[in-house]
Amino acid sequence: MLELWELAGRDDVRFSTFSWRTRMALCHKGLNFNAHPVAVSDKQAIAFSGQTKVPIVKASDRVICDSWEIAVFLEREFPDRPSLFGGAAGEQLAYFFNLWTDREIVPGLVPYLMFDVLDCVDEPDQRHLRGQIEGIFKKPLEELYSEREKALQLLGKKLAPVRKMLARAPFLGGVAPAYADYILFGTLQWARVVSEVQVFAPDDALSDWFSRLLDLYGGVGRSERARGERNREAAE
Amino acid sequence: MLELWELAGRDDVRFSTFSWRTRMALCHKGLNFNAHPVAVSDKQAIAFSGQTKVPIVKASDRVICDSWEIAVFLEREFPDRPSLFGGAAGEQLAYFFNLWTDREIVPGLVPYLMFDVLDCVDEPDQRHLRGQIEGIFKKPLEELYSEREKALQLLGKKLAPVRKMLARAPFLGGVAPAYADYILFGTLQWARVVSEVQVFAPDDALSDWFSRLLDLYGGVGRSERARGERNREAAE
Repeated sequence: MLELWELAGRDDVRFSTFSWRTRMALCHKGLNFNAHPVAVSDKQAIAFSGQTKVPIVKASDRVICDSWEIAVFLEREFPDRPSLFGGAAGEQLAYFFNLWTDREIVPGLVPYLMFDVLDCVDEPDQRHLRGQIEGIFKKPLEELYSEREKALQLLGKKLAPVRKMLARAPFLGGVAPAYADYILFGTLQWARVVSEVQVFAPDDALSDWFSRLLDLYGGVGRSERARGERNREAAE
Repeated sequence: MLELWELAGRDDVRFSTFSWRTRMALCHKGLNFNAHPVAVSDKQAIAFSGQTKVPIVKASDRVICDSWEIAVFLEREFPDRPSLFGGAAGEQLAYFFNLWTDREIVPGLVPYLMFDVLDCVDEPDQRHLRGQIEGIFKKPLEELYSEREKALQLLGKKLAPVRKMLARAPFLGGVAPAYADYILFGTLQWARVVSEVQVFAPDDALSDWFSRLLDLYGGVGRSERARGERNREAAE
């Protein structure tokens, strides 16, 4: 049995962009795993890994950190299970897509909605996340949040090539989902879980694709409730 | 026998970014082809295609335009020859890489060295190219050329993810070249053929990779002489 350490907030909310990439990759491979929730600032819980970030996967006595390295590990270790990359060229280009997403998409979205994360996590994590993002952007989270409309417009433009891919095939992996789908999914799932802000319009091709991703593997993505759902339940 | 229409300048210099993508794809598939040089402004020569751009490939009575569409056509039509994409996921992500290159790399390099193309082509083509680029950038080619150092620095940063790919494997296709390699190669080959400006330092990982690409298929890329070589011969 594999073990997965992933971020979790208050009420066990699973919101990590990178942990979702790994969670979907494990499901894609049809692998069972025990998930261990880790609070943002609880570095002690993952000290065994020799570093400070999740996701972490443990398989027998091997510990693998970093979502990309985990994907490569799963592909090598379980070659008879459905492929995450579809071969060597697909793997190299999935790596490129991973770098592009981390460089263009994550920083174009995450800081602008981070204010919404504050009440998904406990107090020490609030301070940790605020310090981290405000340190990088030299602005209060509230100010970043107030700039979100403009940021989302820019993000929409940056995602234009992905829309063009979806005009050719239903998934970024072609006719079937592949790791490239989970790379982008992770970021959008983060937004869905932490914020009620609508990242793209319902008639956007990305919206249909995201819905297909939420339905995969018995709806593992959809079973993590959206911020909107949690808010409505709390109000009832 | 396949037919290829591609850009050519004075003394039959083959410099087209997009035609080189197709030329390398044809070589990758091991296909013989007749190449027809076309001057930039000679739209009459390719009127049969119903549009105004090269590369164009003709196979029996089928005419295919646009370098990406040609690559897909070759992959479908010659499935038993070496694959350009390595499967469906690789194809979707090569399409993404094609869009990224056209959006980030081509406009980050081509306008800044276009001044150097002027004396690679005849007078009507000079006017055509100057009008085209100056119309888009609202600046004389000379001014764009004077900004090339800054543009090359920015380009170097944009290529950082490609360097990371090359740290994992010798080609963008992994252990062997694939269409993704030819996408980027086309632009850098354009620069090599039209200009003496050094796009990257000799100790850049991109330089080794580019050299490997020039050597492929009997050195088809290298057999097109660089601007530097042509200049040295003319000076002798």
